[in-house]
Amino acid sequence: MEPDFTKGLLTTVVVDATTEDVLMVAWMNEASYRLTKQTGETWFWSRSRQELWHKGATSGNTQVVKEMWLDCDQDTLLVKVDPAGPACHTGARSCFFNQVQGKED
Amino acid sequence: MEPDFTKGLLTTVVVDATTEDVLMVAWMNEASYRLTKQTGETWFWSRSRQELWHKGATSGNTQVVKEMWLDCDQDTLLVKVDPAGPACHTGARSCFFNQVQGKED
Repeated sequence: MEPDFTKGLLTTVVVDATTEDVLMVAWMNEASYRLTKQTGETWFWSRSRQELWHKGATSGNTQVVKEMWLDCDQDTLLVKVDPAGPACHTGARSCFFNQVQGKED
Repeated sequence: MEPDFTKGLLTTVVVDATTEDVLMVAWMNEASYRLTKQTGETWFWSRSRQELWHKGATSGNTQVVKEMWLDCDQDTLLVKVDPAGPACHTGARSCFFNQVQGKED
């Protein structure tokens, strides 16, 4: 089973393989998907910079791929990784550190 | 902290609050985000049908929101839910049931 890139960029959810915490969401084009499979580390497509992005290339916080799962309609990827450091550019382990207030009155 | 809807639809990762399994990825517009907060159940924006979508309205497989977390740049939401049934339209508990082969030779 392979992604359907005719639908556009592949939404990618990165999860810590050990803790199962969701670390970040990023996007892959076909080239970054191939690089991820070939190198065993995460590569994304930066939508803001419009360029391939090897996660951790500058920070050292690479992510070693343990498992990859495609969703039912092949346009979203779940990647379980061993992270070498924080996933977030803020230095946080996960990008999801802002809790939203729940049910409103 | 609130989502930044000027960036477009809010990518939403839905996780099982008990098992931490990633169940599905969907999109919210501002109306569906408000409905999610107001009702305590997940509402999305269906990109294919271009309409508000109360998850489980027809299937009964609603998702009760336990926690919501925004990412560092406020354009991705992590929602932890108690699911009343399968998240996937195929009947699978999670949409991520297709394992991708790992590192290529």
